[in-house]
Order: sequence, then structure tokens, then C-alpha cells
Amino acid sequence: MSIDGNEPDRTPKWQRRPEQRRREILDAARSAFGCFGYQRATLSEVAERAGVCSGTVSHYFGSKSELFEALIADQFIGFVEREEAAVASFTGPMRDLLHVILRDIWEHAWTPGRLELMQVLLVEADEFPAAGQLFCRQLGHRWRGIFGRILETGMANGEFKALDPNVASRVVLYSLLGTAQKMAVVGKFDPEMPDRDLVLQGLTDMIDCYVAAPTPAIAQRAAATHETSKRRKVST
Amino acid sequence: MSIDGNEPDRTPKWQRRPEQRRREILDAARSAFGCFGYQRATLSEVAERAGVCSGTVSHYFGSKSELFEALIADQFIGFVEREEAAVASFTGPMRDLLHVILRDIWEHAWTPGRLELMQVLLVEADEFPAAGQLFCRQLGHRWRGIFGRILETGMANGEFKALDPNVASRVVLYSLLGTAQKMAVVGKFDPEMPDRDLVLQGLTDMIDCYVAAPTPAIAQRAAATHETSKRRKVST
Repeated sequence: MSIDGNEPDRTPKWQRRPEQRRREILDAARSAFGCFGYQRATLSEVAERAGVCSGTVSHYFGSKSELFEALIADQFIGFVEREEAAVASFTGPMRDLLHVILRDIWEHAWTPGRLELMQVLLVEADEFPAAGQLFCRQLGHRWRGIFGRILETGMANGEFKALDPNVASRVVLYSLLGTAQKMAVVGKFDPEMPDRDLVLQGLTDMIDCYVAAPTPAIAQRAAATHETSKRRKVST
Repeated sequence: MSIDGNEPDRTPKWQRRPEQRRREILDAARSAFGCFGYQRATLSEVAERAGVCSGTVSHYFGSKSELFEALIADQFIGFVEREEAAVASFTGPMRDLLHVILRDIWEHAWTPGRLELMQVLLVEADEFPAAGQLFCRQLGHRWRGIFGRILETGMANGEFKALDPNVASRVVLYSLLGTAQKMAVVGKFDPEMPDRDLVLQGLTDMIDCYVAAPTPAIAQRAAATHETSKRRKVST
């Protein structure tokens, strides 16, 4: 069975086209790197999961580090490109667009093997500097671009409050992905873990409140509360 | 130099008391497990970092898995106990208490070696089920208790809106810790990473807005926006 839970391909392996073989190796690599981490995963482990020999993996992708970089590109670059296109063509309230993007990222993160792969990137980033830099510079920059554009458009049209896009875009993105990662791990041991959709709804509500422009009433109340809390001593 | 950046202890090692030796081994273990992960860290690596022989580590803590469980207890259980006591003795607005707890968790997470240790827990949880369950059941339950108590008290006194504490406490805690973890890794490669305090301020603002009780004006506006967005088709 493929790791996405799809039906296995019944075509004999020798008849499959190179593009399909490439796809199978990348899916196997996502599973192997996600399961064992970068250091401990081997090309032969990837080959076994893809049902090919190690030489075929090397033929398509070269070394382990080259395969890993191709995997990162495959898993994350195409997605950010599609989201950039969605943002560029969108007309409507920025709040609606923000909701679409948050849900897309959430669903993308929950694809089997992908959160595990992101965790490998978190823990082993020091050990593959080239891929780490690729991940950070290209993806981080592009995701901040997407959120920055949404935030700035929303600020300009009066939907959103004034926020530093470099801070706000990270707070939003890191909260979303960080929550998915914690849920995935803690959920293995925690029978009270709420449904994924309920948590996304909570995150979306939280982010909504964070970016929404205040009404005058709320702004006055917030200022008053701020003054009160400055005068009060916190008793811990 | 110790990993906390403190001055090294100049007392000869043989003169130090067992409690101090125990402390040194735990600090060395935090560093070794954080650096290599659970699988690859060894008792002799821990011993070397603590400046003792492997037998001494075993004498104090037993096996690698026992040392790891002692480390988790040392790093996280004492902290949650102190926060529980702070919550129990607090009198004042729940919003102020929430800010104190958020800042305490943030500072605690940024102690050298601790975010790395949390990442090891995330990635290798399957490989140490006993410690993973300890972490999840005890800590998760207690942290949800802390946030649940703050949220429920704030809902009862009218400061906070009606939220499901099981969802809201996770959204808040996972966003906070997930953001710290992402920042720590991405910050290594990203010269535009904002200051830690600015990000905490953004997170606190976001969480504030999420839990605050709406004014009647905002509630009407939110309901109207919700209706508008349900009627609108999102064009992606």
C-alpha cells in the first residue's frame, strides 16, 4: 500500500514511466526520512520502500543529501507556488483569503509523513546546512511574502489593525505549524486530544482576533485595561 | 564552562556533594540528549560532558532510559509545580495571570538546551514510550489544568469569552511552544528573525484577543462578518 493510503499500482514495475518511478522514490523517501531522521535513513531503506534497488535511487537522485534536497523541494516548493498563485488571483476580503491559506497549510501539514519530515528538519537542521538554508531562505521568505501581502492589503483596506508583518506573519505561521506538530505527537498518548477541525477552528478564531481592526469601543477598552494592568502589581 | 554560561565550579570534583554531582550529570544529559537525540546519545557522552566516569552516571541514574526519565522530570515537573502554586495563590485579573504564565513558559523554553530537548521528545517519542507517556500524561494534563483554571475563572468573572478549555488551552500552549521551536531553528539561517521579546509580545496580543470577552459592538460585527463570509464564494 502506498503511504497515502491509495491503491497500489498494478502495472509491472518495468513498464512504469520514469516520472512515476521518480514519484514512488520521493514518496518512499518522505516516509523513510520522516521515520528515521536524516542521519539514520539510508538509500537502501528508501529503495526497499519504493520497491526498487539502491542503484535506481542513485540513478534518479544521486547521493542521500541530493535526494533529501529533491524531497524538500518536492514536498514544499510546489505547494508554496500554488498558494502564491492563489493569493495573486484572489479578489475579496483578506479575512476570507487568510482562512483559505490557513486551512490549506493545515491540510498540507497533515498529509501522512509530512509533519514527521518537518520535525526532522527542526531537529537535524544543523546536519544538512545546504538543505536547511534552502528550506529557510526560499520557503520562509516566500511564506512571509504570502502572509505579508495578505496582512498589508488588509491593513490598507481597513480590515486589519496595524501590525509588523515580519512579526505577525511568523506568529501566525509558526503557531499553526507548531500546533499541528505538538498535536501529532501528544495525540499518540492523549485520549482527550480534540478533533483536528476543532483545533483549526480555534487557531483561526485566534488569528482572526489578532489581525482584525478594532472598533473604537474595543480600542478604548483595551487602552483602559492596559493602564489598569500597568498600575497593578502581579502577585507571583 | 557550564552550558548555562555560569562560572565553572572550582571545588575539586571529589569534594562536591552528591546533590551537586547529580545536578551536573542532569545538565550534561540535557545537553547530550538535546544535541544527539535519545537514540544516539550515550551514557559515556553524558559522563564526558559532566567530567565524571560512565560508572558514576550509572550509579546515580541507572540505565540510559532511567537517566532520560529523570531528566524529563527534572526539566519539566518542577517547573509545572511552581506554576501551579503561582496560579493557586494568585488574586487579580486572569488576564494578568495569563500574561505571567505565558512569559514564564517562554523564558523556561529558551533556557539553553531545553528547546532542543523538547524537539527530541517530539521526534523520538515513539522510541521511549514510558517517558513519552510520562511527558504527555503528567505534564500535558497539568498544563491543561493550569490553563483550564485560568480560562474558566476568566469566563466566570466575565473577562473571557466562552471557549472550550480543552481546545483553547492546547491552542494557546502549542502556539507558544511551537513558535519558540520554529524560531530557534529558523533563526539560525534567517537574519530577519525578529527579537524574541517582540515575538512574545505578538503571541500575547494574539492570545489576549482570542480569550477576551467581546463587547456588544464587536459581537454584532463578528456575527455580521460570519454571515457575509458564509454567503460569499471564495475564489480559489
